[in-house]
Amino acid sequence: MRATTIHAPGDIRVEEVPDPSINAPTDAIVKVVAGCVCGSDLWPYRGENPIKAGSTIGHECVGVVEAVGSDVTSFVPGDFVIVPFDHCDNTCPHCAAGVQSACVNLGITQSGQAEYTLVTQAEGSLVRTDGMPDGALLPSLLTLSDVMPTGWHAAVAAGVREGGTVVVVGDGAVGLCGVLAAATMGAEKIIAMSRHEPRQKIATEFGATHIVAERGRPGVAAVEEITGGVGADAVLECVGTGDAMEMAFGIARPGGTVGFVGVPHGVELPIRRMFQKNIGLAGGMAPVRRYLPDLLDLVLSGRINPGIVFDLTLPLEQVAEGYRAMDERRSIKVLIEP
Amino acid sequence: MRATTIHAPGDIRVEEVPDPSINAPTDAIVKVVAGCVCGSDLWPYRGENPIKAGSTIGHECVGVVEAVGSDVTSFVPGDFVIVPFDHCDNTCPHCAAGVQSACVNLGITQSGQAEYTLVTQAEGSLVRTDGMPDGALLPSLLTLSDVMPTGWHAAVAAGVREGGTVVVVGDGAVGLCGVLAAATMGAEKIIAMSRHEPRQKIATEFGATHIVAERGRPGVAAVEEITGGVGADAVLECVGTGDAMEMAFGIARPGGTVGFVGVPHGVELPIRRMFQKNIGLAGGMAPVRRYLPDLLDLVLSGRINPGIVFDLTLPLEQVAEGYRAMDERRSIKVLIEP
Repeated sequence: MRATTIHAPGDIRVEEVPDPSINAPTDAIVKVVAGCVCGSDLWPYRGENPIKAGSTIGHECVGVVEAVGSDVTSFVPGDFVIVPFDHCDNTCPHCAAGVQSACVNLGITQSGQAEYTLVTQAEGSLVRTDGMPDGALLPSLLTLSDVMPTGWHAAVAAGVREGGTVVVVGDGAVGLCGVLAAATMGAEKIIAMSRHEPRQKIATEFGATHIVAERGRPGVAAVEEITGGVGADAVLECVGTGDAMEMAFGIARPGGTVGFVGVPHGVELPIRRMFQKNIGLAGGMAPVRRYLPDLLDLVLSGRINPGIVFDLTLPLEQVAEGYRAMDERRSIKVLIEP
Repeated sequence: MRATTIHAPGDIRVEEVPDPSINAPTDAIVKVVAGCVCGSDLWPYRGENPIKAGSTIGHECVGVVEAVGSDVTSFVPGDFVIVPFDHCDNTCPHCAAGVQSACVNLGITQSGQAEYTLVTQAEGSLVRTDGMPDGALLPSLLTLSDVMPTGWHAAVAAGVREGGTVVVVGDGAVGLCGVLAAATMGAEKIIAMSRHEPRQKIATEFGATHIVAERGRPGVAAVEEITGGVGADAVLECVGTGDAMEMAFGIARPGGTVGFVGVPHGVELPIRRMFQKNIGLAGGMAPVRRYLPDLLDLVLSGRINPGIVFDLTLPLEQVAEGYRAMDERRSIKVLIEP
């Protein structure tokens, strides 16, 4: 099959690789209808993560079931499914506790930007739609494989509540989905930290009540002013860098919580401040399957439309341009059509 | 007045110092009936915190109101009061949110091991008993100025729930009070990490269902066995060292929370593990005033008896021996009578 591979920082190719195959009774093969590039794909692309040269890359996709192993009884070939980037059996003690991202049988999608992908725990992971969805819904459905549940998870972890004050650090697709999550949960003030006009626009459309373009100390000061010197009840940290985390802790009110979902890179937590101000930290890799059924309902009912984070669609053969566009922040998120 | 002072690591003295005086309308002077030595007093005693030579030390006490400023209307001389180590106005936005330890008018008791002490926000901070309490209750009432609410805060921050599994790291007075808090909240399994027989005994009396004497990896392995490989829902970190924190994160189940109340010293948080396992961290300096009324009820009704953490009582003039006894772990907690 044709699949996206990475060979070195900045070196994204589309190559012929072996088709995935059913190796275990819990496996399924999904023919990818739409995949996309994730902010976290940029870590290896930028040389911040180690690269195994020639390995496939991409972990977000939706598609149609092509084949299933013998233990997979709820899905048949032809089903349209959302593929959580983190595969889980959905039955182990961690799954039962709502932490499917720590499933004892955890798997990760390895070829979301490709013609086919393998789902290692298909029965527990996949969620089906009734029939083939309308093409207009595809982008929103695709966000359900990672970014939308990840933004939602940040909001859950940060303890977003009705009437509360929320700050979202990071205006990538996950941060924007965090704004949408906070609005859907009924937060009253939602402050999006963003200095890019197209992203500010989507943040506002998703429910942000304030936009703060400043970063660092001026950013903290702006939030302080908006919150009457109190700080935010909940901060969604959707970047993963040390600067972003520092700002998040600077913005949270005493007793508040930073919900973090950006894969941490070079983060040193300000434990003295956390202690003195009682600012908690919670979050991590999103348990996509936990939120998927409810989020799917929200998408199908038209209550949320996260798919507008996609501002560029490319055929698989041009995926390298998709990486470049996201790396250079010319694009928020790129949809890839195999 | 006679007061405990610190001059250098290990150099505790009792000296004549100026009596505290009412300097602000929110002040009160309390004649100390009983004070005590806190585990956190051992940080400067051991040279781990900077020392201002000759400064008074000690922040836990109960006593009788001696004088009040003009804004203090709820207390009169003669009232028996519990003095939260952290003084608060109990009206600012942070107090209103239950984070009295981040009050905008925060004060800290400066001479709990002395004849008198100053309370800078008396109206908001103090809690009175009806009349003079029975002498037998004094130790338990004294724990309410810091260790018992601090152990309680660890349990609240860690999200202890009825039926849950809790591990308490640290068998000092705070850790033991954390065991008592978890038991009072209805936790089903309470694992106390302790290798000192007298502390194990109190932990068991407070409601610990399991004692683990091992530390580090063997300690983590022991908890894993007790929890069927799952880990603890809530971990109360009541020490503040890097080793204790590392163990706490090793013990928490995915999706669990570490509640921390030990003043952090040399702690580097395992953010990658926190991310991968969705283990949260919450807590910090305890908002004593928040919990005081309820805890006072529990003490007065006889439902909890935290005072048994005091295993040594000394007159003020022998306070230096109290520090030595706690430093050498010959005593769990020392009550000081001025």
